Amino acid sequence: MVRWEPGTRDRLQAAATELYVSRGYDRTTAADIAQAAGVTERTFFRHFADKREVLFGGQELLEQAFVEGVAAAAPDASPLEMVEAGLWAAAPFFAAERRDHSRRRQRIISENPALQERELLKMAGMATTITAALRSRGVPDVTARLAAESGVMVFGVAFGTWVAEGEERSFTDIQREVLGELVAMTSGAR
Amino acid sequence: MVRWEPGTRDRLQAAATELYVSRGYDRTTAADIAQAAGVTERTFFRHFADKREVLFGGQELLEQAFVEGVAAAAPDASPLEMVEAGLWAAAPFFAAERRDHSRRRQRIISENPALQERELLKMAGMATTITAALRSRGVPDVTARLAAESGVMVFGVAFGTWVAEGEERSFTDIQREVLGELVAMTSGAR
Repeated sequence: MVRWEPGTRDRLQAAATELYVSRGYDRTTAADIAQAAGVTERTFFRHFADKREVLFGGQELLEQAFVEGVAAAAPDASPLEMVEAGLWAAAPFFAAERRDHSRRRQRIISENPALQERELLKMAGMATTITAALRSRGVPDVTARLAAESGVMVFGVAFGTWVAEGEERSFTDIQREVLGELVAMTSGAR
Repeated sequence: MVRWEPGTRDRLQAAATELYVSRGYDRTTAADIAQAAGVTERTFFRHFADKREVLFGGQELLEQAFVEGVAAAAPDASPLEMVEAGLWAAAPFFAAERRDHSRRRQRIISENPALQERELLKMAGMATTITAALRSRGVPDVTARLAAESGVMVFGVAFGTWVAEGEERSFTDIQREVLGELVAMTSGAR
């Protein structure tokens, strides 16, 4: 049986982020990360498929929380309300104590086109998953796609604002504001 | 002076799409495409940076049309109306006679993750460009980003519907409907 040391995954992520910032993403190997975290390379690969995935681990949990939020929305909720329920269910991932880590992570990604592509693909995958969750609640296809992509868009803009240098508002405050902006913008009010 | 033969670019695109479908994207080289179009490999590389770009050439023109539409919107237009003006300015790229080509192209992309990543990156770039166009018209940052990404989203959903097998409505009809769906969805009407 594999002994699954609690906290190993978090330690690997912290060590990777540290090395990606100090040494550069391209010059850091999985072996370097394992060593910095005090585990074997083999242990690294039990947790992550490659060094790129260290930055994106946790995405499934976020997606799962979002989808559960959609599923738990009131029976008479509109598609937008279902998406809002998903956004609020995912918000606890972005607590104040995660902000510094998220800022460092975002800086690493923004400096590397291959990582940006991976991030876009993850976001597109999230939109697809949310679309399916909305469809299974009876939302028609086009509406489900628009609602899901709007949700991912609101999340993306809120997240980008939250990790901006100098920004101090909480993720939930920012997300509420971005959602309000979306509704105001599409109402077409001049 | 380089002699710039009219139509060479179109011929290269047609030959590439043909080969990507018949032989597979991975098994087609730039030299194959040049040969099929009756030009030298050197000519191929005067038109396209690599074989991936053959599928994405024309993106700049689409983006330019969109941005010009935004710039030409009425002085008192709302951000959403500016984006709508952009969408309508870009719509002529999707005339009936382009549909078969677009369908083949989309099938090639959907079968290749690297091409999907490139497409997502192009769409993200388009959103960034439109955001800048909106900001230069005085739209505040967050609203500009939401409006631009909404525009790209409407375009993406409309395009995806337009190239679906069996779909017969025109691109403009579909786009009008998707825009209407977005407004209805975000109005939160149950």
